[in-house]
Amino acid sequence: MIARLLEDKVELDKDAIDILYNTGYFGRPRGNVLELSLVEAAYLLYREKISITMDSESLSFPEFFKIASMRHRYFELKYIVYKDLKERGFYVQPSVADFRVYPRGGHPGKTPARSYVYVRSERSSVSITELMKSLNTVSNVRKQMILAIVDEESDITFYEVKKISISGQMEQFNDNLNAESSLLEDRVIVWDKKASSDLYNKGFYGKPLDEDRLQLSLIESAYLLEKNLIQIKDRERDKVLDSDYFFNKASEIEPEFSIKYHVYRDMREKGLVPKTGFKFGTHFRLYIDIESPKKIPHSEYLVHAISENHIFILPIMSRAIRLANSVRKRMVFALNYNGNYEYIDIGRVKM
Amino acid sequence: MIARLLEDKVELDKDAIDILYNTGYFGRPRGNVLELSLVEAAYLLYREKISITMDSESLSFPEFFKIASMRHRYFELKYIVYKDLKERGFYVQPSVADFRVYPRGGHPGKTPARSYVYVRSERSSVSITELMKSLNTVSNVRKQMILAIVDEESDITFYEVKKISISGQMEQFNDNLNAESSLLEDRVIVWDKKASSDLYNKGFYGKPLDEDRLQLSLIESAYLLEKNLIQIKDRERDKVLDSDYFFNKASEIEPEFSIKYHVYRDMREKGLVPKTGFKFGTHFRLYIDIESPKKIPHSEYLVHAISENHIFILPIMSRAIRLANSVRKRMVFALNYNGNYEYIDIGRVKM
Repeated sequence: MIARLLEDKVELDKDAIDILYNTGYFGRPRGNVLELSLVEAAYLLYREKISITMDSESLSFPEFFKIASMRHRYFELKYIVYKDLKERGFYVQPSVADFRVYPRGGHPGKTPARSYVYVRSERSSVSITELMKSLNTVSNVRKQMILAIVDEESDITFYEVKKISISGQMEQFNDNLNAESSLLEDRVIVWDKKASSDLYNKGFYGKPLDEDRLQLSLIESAYLLEKNLIQIKDRERDKVLDSDYFFNKASEIEPEFSIKYHVYRDMREKGLVPKTGFKFGTHFRLYIDIESPKKIPHSEYLVHAISENHIFILPIMSRAIRLANSVRKRMVFALNYNGNYEYIDIGRVKM
Repeated sequence: MIARLLEDKVELDKDAIDILYNTGYFGRPRGNVLELSLVEAAYLLYREKISITMDSESLSFPEFFKIASMRHRYFELKYIVYKDLKERGFYVQPSVADFRVYPRGGHPGKTPARSYVYVRSERSSVSITELMKSLNTVSNVRKQMILAIVDEESDITFYEVKKISISGQMEQFNDNLNAESSLLEDRVIVWDKKASSDLYNKGFYGKPLDEDRLQLSLIESAYLLEKNLIQIKDRERDKVLDSDYFFNKASEIEPEFSIKYHVYRDMREKGLVPKTGFKFGTHFRLYIDIESPKKIPHSEYLVHAISENHIFILPIMSRAIRLANSVRKRMVFALNYNGNYEYIDIGRVKM
């Protein structure tokens, strides 16, 4: 079959509809012709199902590939992903996301598409705004959102992006301990033995400095101070610090404090126990419930707080997810988006 | 025993030398007195071995701790690490690095110190220049260099930092294939079947696009071009690209290209096979030898190329190392330092 290369598509005569569309769901019938995207055309040319002409001259695979690469941004990446999916037996259609993919055993006309696949180069970056928009579009039509990231050696990693909601069983801590504590360089120490023990054992706040005293992180201290559960003094003159002053001070010590703090508070309010995720390179590891500090369960989530303006650098995102998965945890990015806290779970999937 | 707090140290009378130094190696005898660092003093105060006075007034633990925290930067962090090491039975002495630590069973006067421990907060950053200087100092006296990083919840992670040399058994590839290939958007495709097969099978370059054609990364392409092994044309006019032009073009596409490329070349010249480490969030995964692409061995190293001006953000460094270790690999940072390529292995250790 002979196909004609037009501007950004390839066109075949009517008989192709029967052969390519009705049997393989390639292209889209438009009246008397069948239209193929450049990616579909390259694949059919490689499979020697069609030949392609431009101005009546036949094009070799390299010739067509180079032209397509100039006419369609990221053509090579899309071709690599398309070919991979086709060769693993999926029906794939071009769409507003790069591709709509049908479930195994399904095809256009028989079943709805299952996934919307967005193809990106590891070198490009993806803003959370862009991701949330795509995710909302895809969720509205109840599809699965897939990011297919092609690395510099053309290996593909598929990630599923989804919103999740998590809540915990940790009870709120309501005693006003009013315990004296001091802000030292970048942490707070609770000097009172009883308060130290209560905070640690009942709320899983902080870490013991020794048998009598507890160290709190800035985040934990700010939360306990805001809830009026502790009293924090400065180290120099034992002046009592108010919540605003402490918040500003903590933000000076740690530039991301505010972003982290709001997510921390949201999680605590939902009955969850966030603790530092430093060893995993993220802001928090998250516990659903902690009965006793002596019996700490497996934490199922790593949570990284991001701002509404966050830009994902893909190799860094890839590393975070890979690491989370390697310790049997889910990687979750949390942000305040249009006034709501959203928890976005991004995980590798096999397609 | 009564100790007197002076400016940045604590002093005890002569009898303390016998009790604290000769039996526990606390402090340093100076003529008729024993001098303790603030950290040692806080620990002995906590252990109730000494009491501390300032201007003849006795200080409580919180009082002394707050004063010490104001007089000695990162006092709390150092105290946390010191206490941890002491409680696990090590003899520890203050030093130019924060601490000198003696091997298990060893102590001052009996055995030389084994490790120099540098204490850092996860919030501080560490420049590679600073790290190389410390590493050179420590290596010159044949000690082990340890970074003790204290996270915001006061957990300590110990990292050993060391130089390593790695070489491989991959033979250099010497045929001039002169095979035609094209630079597309951000990768190169080799169109020739024989050359594609040779590059992939004999040198483990690239990744097959299909049975006949090979995709090369920018890094691989630049190296093969510099070695005169391939010919690269532009996609528009089939103009042959020279090495300099290609290098500049690649640097436009990928800002870190130059840093990565020089490390890549050094590794290839040493008979190693670097491939992309994208899935691990690093520049390269590294093979010592590849007999055949059908039998790819476990890669033991992840390598990240950095510049001489690199600043380690500690949570990011922590994540990279944790991830490497979780897939049974060593994390190595590679750089050109004063004209030599240095490979710095940073790994978690139990102390």
